[in-house]
Amino acid sequence: MPKKKIFSKIPVYPMSVIIVGADVENKPNFLTVVWFSMVNFEPPTIAAVLNKGHYTNKGIRENKTFSINVPSTELLAVTDYCSVVSGFDHDKSKLFDISYGELKNAPMIQECPLTAECRVVQTMQFATHELFIGEIVATYAEDNILTREHPDIKKIKPILYSMYDNYYWELGKKLAHAMHVGKRFEQHN
Amino acid sequence: MPKKKIFSKIPVYPMSVIIVGADVENKPNFLTVVWFSMVNFEPPTIAAVLNKGHYTNKGIRENKTFSINVPSTELLAVTDYCSVVSGFDHDKSKLFDISYGELKNAPMIQECPLTAECRVVQTMQFATHELFIGEIVATYAEDNILTREHPDIKKIKPILYSMYDNYYWELGKKLAHAMHVGKRFEQHN
Repeated sequence: MPKKKIFSKIPVYPMSVIIVGADVENKPNFLTVVWFSMVNFEPPTIAAVLNKGHYTNKGIRENKTFSINVPSTELLAVTDYCSVVSGFDHDKSKLFDISYGELKNAPMIQECPLTAECRVVQTMQFATHELFIGEIVATYAEDNILTREHPDIKKIKPILYSMYDNYYWELGKKLAHAMHVGKRFEQHN
Repeated sequence: MPKKKIFSKIPVYPMSVIIVGADVENKPNFLTVVWFSMVNFEPPTIAAVLNKGHYTNKGIRENKTFSINVPSTELLAVTDYCSVVSGFDHDKSKLFDISYGELKNAPMIQECPLTAECRVVQTMQFATHELFIGEIVATYAEDNILTREHPDIKKIKPILYSMYDNYYWELGKKLAHAMHVGKRFEQHN
């Protein structure tokens, strides 16, 4: 099918929603983030991309730590709230039960079924955004989201986000086993 | 709910599936990628994270260009195939109809409803992976995935991937309007 060049250059794809936590001036603060990705397998390293104007960045820069919190759909309203109000003028430290792990200043959200604490190993500056690269020090999960000791995506009930229309979505139906459908494709081509 | 530290440190979240394209030794090659993220808004910039051992990396390094191709669920088998076989010993240049845009060596997949061409502005090396940061030069969409001139996630029918269980998923039901549920949460708290 022919395609045309479009005005909006940012490609549309489902973005997973996480909440990034950081202590800012000794108080936990949280920001909803959809721009992030794993960047290395061993040691496990993740990059979180935050607009430079956010309050959270200040704490990450100061402490060189942040947390990753994967919310389930039950936490949708408070997750969205963390993107609606800023730590500059709203205290978000009371929104959740908070725990700390090996790092003493990466606040993790107890209500999120999966959390991780990260030590910043590098940062990168872009025009509008700041990229924090964090080595994952430890990852924590609720027992009830594990299947054979691994976090199970269906049990987590993660939240997805789409650009331009600005909607949240849930994960849909299972399609196929990766590395299997492709092998069958090979045999038939 | 209490959590315990788990062995697998990489957090589980739905990863969107894209196909990264590059000319390698003057021939188009394609690799399925799930580690990527937007990293800047203006100019629109995206980071694609590829294991260092891939054939595709060679072409991106040489040409300083790559393409981003968002496949729909109809393309699941060939998308998975692009992750199953390597360009080192398989010619993937005939799998798709290919087009080029403003950059002359970032091969885009005609069958994918949404594609973009990127110019590498920076690379970063990690132990196992390589991060290519690409400024998005142009983005192309099929007319039938547009709603009010923007790509529409439901019309794209994107593919998602989950780690550990190694499954592909489709996008599920719409949950809520972002920046709205959070405002209602604020009014009630």
